[in-house]
Amino acid sequence: MREVAVIGIGQTKVDEHWDKSLRELAGEAALAAMVEAQVDHVDSVYVGNMMSGTANQQAQLGSLIADWIGQRYTDAVKVESACSSGSAAFRMGYLAVASGEVDAALVVGVEKMTDSPGNEITAALATAADADWEVDQGVSFVGLNALIMQRYMYEYGWKGIDFAGFSINAHANAVHNPFARFRTKLTEERFINSPMICDPINLMDASPIGDGAAAAVLVAASRLSKSSPKIIVAGSSGATDTISIHDRKAPLWLYAAEKSAKEAYQQAGISHEDIDLFEYHDAFTIMAALSLEACGFAAPGMGPSLAKDGAIKLDGEIPVATRGGLKARGHPVGATGMYQLVELVQQLRGQAGETQVKNATFGLAQNIGGSGSNIVTHILKREN
Amino acid sequence: MREVAVIGIGQTKVDEHWDKSLRELAGEAALAAMVEAQVDHVDSVYVGNMMSGTANQQAQLGSLIADWIGQRYTDAVKVESACSSGSAAFRMGYLAVASGEVDAALVVGVEKMTDSPGNEITAALATAADADWEVDQGVSFVGLNALIMQRYMYEYGWKGIDFAGFSINAHANAVHNPFARFRTKLTEERFINSPMICDPINLMDASPIGDGAAAAVLVAASRLSKSSPKIIVAGSSGATDTISIHDRKAPLWLYAAEKSAKEAYQQAGISHEDIDLFEYHDAFTIMAALSLEACGFAAPGMGPSLAKDGAIKLDGEIPVATRGGLKARGHPVGATGMYQLVELVQQLRGQAGETQVKNATFGLAQNIGGSGSNIVTHILKREN
Repeated sequence: MREVAVIGIGQTKVDEHWDKSLRELAGEAALAAMVEAQVDHVDSVYVGNMMSGTANQQAQLGSLIADWIGQRYTDAVKVESACSSGSAAFRMGYLAVASGEVDAALVVGVEKMTDSPGNEITAALATAADADWEVDQGVSFVGLNALIMQRYMYEYGWKGIDFAGFSINAHANAVHNPFARFRTKLTEERFINSPMICDPINLMDASPIGDGAAAAVLVAASRLSKSSPKIIVAGSSGATDTISIHDRKAPLWLYAAEKSAKEAYQQAGISHEDIDLFEYHDAFTIMAALSLEACGFAAPGMGPSLAKDGAIKLDGEIPVATRGGLKARGHPVGATGMYQLVELVQQLRGQAGETQVKNATFGLAQNIGGSGSNIVTHILKREN
Repeated sequence: MREVAVIGIGQTKVDEHWDKSLRELAGEAALAAMVEAQVDHVDSVYVGNMMSGTANQQAQLGSLIADWIGQRYTDAVKVESACSSGSAAFRMGYLAVASGEVDAALVVGVEKMTDSPGNEITAALATAADADWEVDQGVSFVGLNALIMQRYMYEYGWKGIDFAGFSINAHANAVHNPFARFRTKLTEERFINSPMICDPINLMDASPIGDGAAAAVLVAASRLSKSSPKIIVAGSSGATDTISIHDRKAPLWLYAAEKSAKEAYQQAGISHEDIDLFEYHDAFTIMAALSLEACGFAAPGMGPSLAKDGAIKLDGEIPVATRGGLKARGHPVGATGMYQLVELVQQLRGQAGETQVKNATFGLAQNIGGSGSNIVTHILKREN
């Protein structure tokens, strides 16, 4: 396999983009990545997106976006794995370049959620759960996460306030990210007083939806000068679990997250101790805790302690959500995985401004589809 | 890149499967392929599907199907490019194995269309067109194909009856395929008397929807004994065009089909003259004609002549739809590309029974997404 490098990134602000269509959002991020990469042609386009069929009445985003960005006739497909679609598309781009078939691949994650009529978005998000065995019983996607959090608190004795640190940290970092949706500080008081959405998940435990796109250009690393600094894909792994939570061996353990993280560590030849920052999938604070545990940063049931003792801050043991995370940057579902990877690249290049993690060499990004059923983990590395 | 071989195939009958869910259909085909391949584990699962979000309220089919077939925890995603989703997924499986990352990949195309409430399927099929610039004007997917056919007849002087041979040939072959939806002969008289659906497309110009799944197991060819016969992927290429027909350089020429076919021929080191059979995308008879032209078998505007002079029959110059094609085997949209490839394997192995093409060495499969906007072409080859 060929070594693969990221040579260009682009993103839109996560927001309610009432004035921009799906293709315009994707195009903005994709063209920014291509301009930065200084390429005017790519061999393949991989689009990460979850719900364009239901939310935007549009299939085949590969063709739609390739044409819009001046890459008409190029090989292009959409890759979907619910909320991990963005990084699943990145993994496809990685494999295509690694195989030798493709010299330059563009990956773009895009989602447009805020101008769909009626209740379509809640219904579209519920397609990430099991239609026959979960949704048919009337449970929403937030409801499923609330069940996990409820059980977790019961088993390990945590209170709702113990999860506040995850959201406070995310908002503190988002203040400095011009692409983040909510650039406002969050206080513990405001967290406590947030309305309950689905007990025990309150409004500040939950990430907001949004419209947005993030993109990257991948090429064979051999194409780059040996002496210049570069960002390479040091690990890439996907793993699945049952969609239905009731079918899992242990509902409080993200087995697929553990498996894909271990595989990625192995590929990169490192352990979790070598990771300098972690862009995790904090769709809900309970997922933040479970991700930290599955990836080796906390013992089972001890995730919230990292939020309480400050280990997740920029100068802590394992900085997370350094650009705002899903909680404050926003969670345009199928685009999120690409936002995470774009943010890792910013950090590894030293372009993260006020939220720069010092001397970052290895960055970890983990994207979760469903409530733990499709997990894609990447490790990016700065070389030279 | 490693050479890739197909070592197992499976399929369900295309039908109205009211008693089988999406996962059951996919499982039936996938497990048949794994049993035939004699593997009980695969490293990755690629699912080709167009409309599970809209028609079945289910995203992340990768996780859904991997779990259902006993491959829980395996890397698995869905690949979508409208009606060419099946072969786009096959292409991902091919790239993953060729790259060296994956040793055994399962590809399954699946679509379940017949028990969705209301008009969802017509709306879901319309997502293959441009939501903003075509569907928003009120045109359906059949309507778009009718516009192309109308113009084609005007430009080249063909009458509706001149397209009958495509459908008659498909039905004649489907009679012998136990997995085909319509195993009935079609006469010219019945074609003529078919009700008009969208002028000039009559009922017998159009392929039927259906529920179905088809699957294949791919491995590195080096894993197989050198002396034993094998089916290898000799060519794989995807290409796109504008989704909107009015944006194309020439609405009567499938440029993406030409481009991907040429690339596949080049990879295989052959020309169209070396192709022994062609599983083409006869969603409508006009697409059959345009495909034959784009792939080099007929001059522009001359596609129907191959149906009239018998060149497309089993003993003709270029046998097509040898197991019934989309017209008579049926067109469960996201599964169709995998049906085409499974049927090629049957032919190259000499397992096609009464519709066997003699001494078939090179088989061509071309899958069309939209009305020509996302086209994936594969060439399979029998070795030894």
